[in-house]
Amino acid sequence: MNRREIALALGGFVATAELPTVGISAAPAATGSEGNAGPAPARPKVGLLVDPEMLLLDLVGPQTILSIAMAEIHLIGKTRDPVVTDVGIPIGPTATFADSPANLDILFVPGRLGGTVKLMRDREVLDFLADHGRRARYVTSVCTGSLLLAAAGLLRGYRAASQWYVRDLLPLMGATMATDRVVVDRNRITGGGVTAGLDFGLTLAAALHGDDTAQRIQLLLEYAPKPPCDAGEPETAGTSLVHEVLARRKPLIDAARAAAAEASAAVRE
Amino acid sequence: MNRREIALALGGFVATAELPTVGISAAPAATGSEGNAGPAPARPKVGLLVDPEMLLLDLVGPQTILSIAMAEIHLIGKTRDPVVTDVGIPIGPTATFADSPANLDILFVPGRLGGTVKLMRDREVLDFLADHGRRARYVTSVCTGSLLLAAAGLLRGYRAASQWYVRDLLPLMGATMATDRVVVDRNRITGGGVTAGLDFGLTLAAALHGDDTAQRIQLLLEYAPKPPCDAGEPETAGTSLVHEVLARRKPLIDAARAAAAEASAAVRE
Repeated sequence: MNRREIALALGGFVATAELPTVGISAAPAATGSEGNAGPAPARPKVGLLVDPEMLLLDLVGPQTILSIAMAEIHLIGKTRDPVVTDVGIPIGPTATFADSPANLDILFVPGRLGGTVKLMRDREVLDFLADHGRRARYVTSVCTGSLLLAAAGLLRGYRAASQWYVRDLLPLMGATMATDRVVVDRNRITGGGVTAGLDFGLTLAAALHGDDTAQRIQLLLEYAPKPPCDAGEPETAGTSLVHEVLARRKPLIDAARAAAAEASAAVRE
Repeated sequence: MNRREIALALGGFVATAELPTVGISAAPAATGSEGNAGPAPARPKVGLLVDPEMLLLDLVGPQTILSIAMAEIHLIGKTRDPVVTDVGIPIGPTATFADSPANLDILFVPGRLGGTVKLMRDREVLDFLADHGRRARYVTSVCTGSLLLAAAGLLRGYRAASQWYVRDLLPLMGATMATDRVVVDRNRITGGGVTAGLDFGLTLAAALHGDDTAQRIQLLLEYAPKPPCDAGEPETAGTSLVHEVLARRKPLIDAARAAAAEASAAVRE
């Protein structure tokens, strides 16, 4: 039993670098102009974008899994000012765009539509993502985060997932819409809405460290989901509930469509 | 479309009290000496125990669901000192044992074995839980939190769930062990390990506000889980992985067993 195994069993942070560099089973890193070549690093550097209006659960699901897998995690904001998340828990960025690690192994963007729409028009954010996304081993998102990746030009020619009621906007920005829970296309790994962060996180853990590691984490987190009802996707929720949510979200969805249309020209240049 | 519906669709905090007081479908509140009688309050007061060593995901899953359902949420610690969670995000309690609301509708205890074991021997914590648990409408937990509820004498004669590798300790403290993902026994609602917090949260939302509300929240959070592997419970993870985790966690599990044995006498008095 080595330190890595103990750390995995205990589920905490460990300052060690004993993770295997083989066993990448789900998503081989791209080579050439997009993505770093070579084997996965022992302790991958992960940059999680801190969106001032993000949903905390979008972040914490993947972050918990990556922490158990002993990634080196950076919460990257425009500034170090704490942001207040949906549940009222403030998050303090640990790095800014200016002092973030230069070469992130994994770039991750959480979601929540209101915040995503604002950032889709924020040149500083788009430039940061485009710059780091070009060099990252994996470019990833959960929920509406993929709209922001797309607006930064990072999903052109890739299949991608997103929150169900805005995923049809992806093609406006050169991506192919997928309805899968998690989509792996070369080195892009994108998840569906909010809770897809758990399925996404395990997929990423398997890509980084192999299926055994992902399975160990799944058992530690007892991730054997049994929702008490069956309304988690539009196909099962029933027409009236879907129409109700679409009607109520219409202003936000319209705003997202406008932002995607604006981004469209820049992305296709 | 009223303010409640807008709030549910937008998934944010709203200072309103328009939730229905009917539609309790999953877990009728106990009456008499345990639990408040009468219909569910429009905006239930929820007290979430802040365990200094808790797993943030244990808290954030249920908290996200309860926030969308517009509960009034209090993060209750022994002091207001922020605690650092497993992923490094600090949580600042919003109330202390001394100034917590006197009558909580819902008492919730998150988990993480190391922290749980310490609190099982903390008289101040046990007294706080026993006092509020006697009066709360629902007494609830996720993950190893049920061991703490049991040590406070709150699960004597109740079926309960817990993290898979310590749930067999529940009978030491007068509870009946269940292997279900979420267990509803009168006004006790307990979830299994970590990610069971989502299934637990939706069950509680249904109990408070009806199945329609739970389904709407499930669709907003796109909770249609599709784990990429099938190792989320000991029955499916395979013998060797289960034995590996049990072996590595043995010191902590032994410590939990000792704490449960100590609590045993007090609980049975």
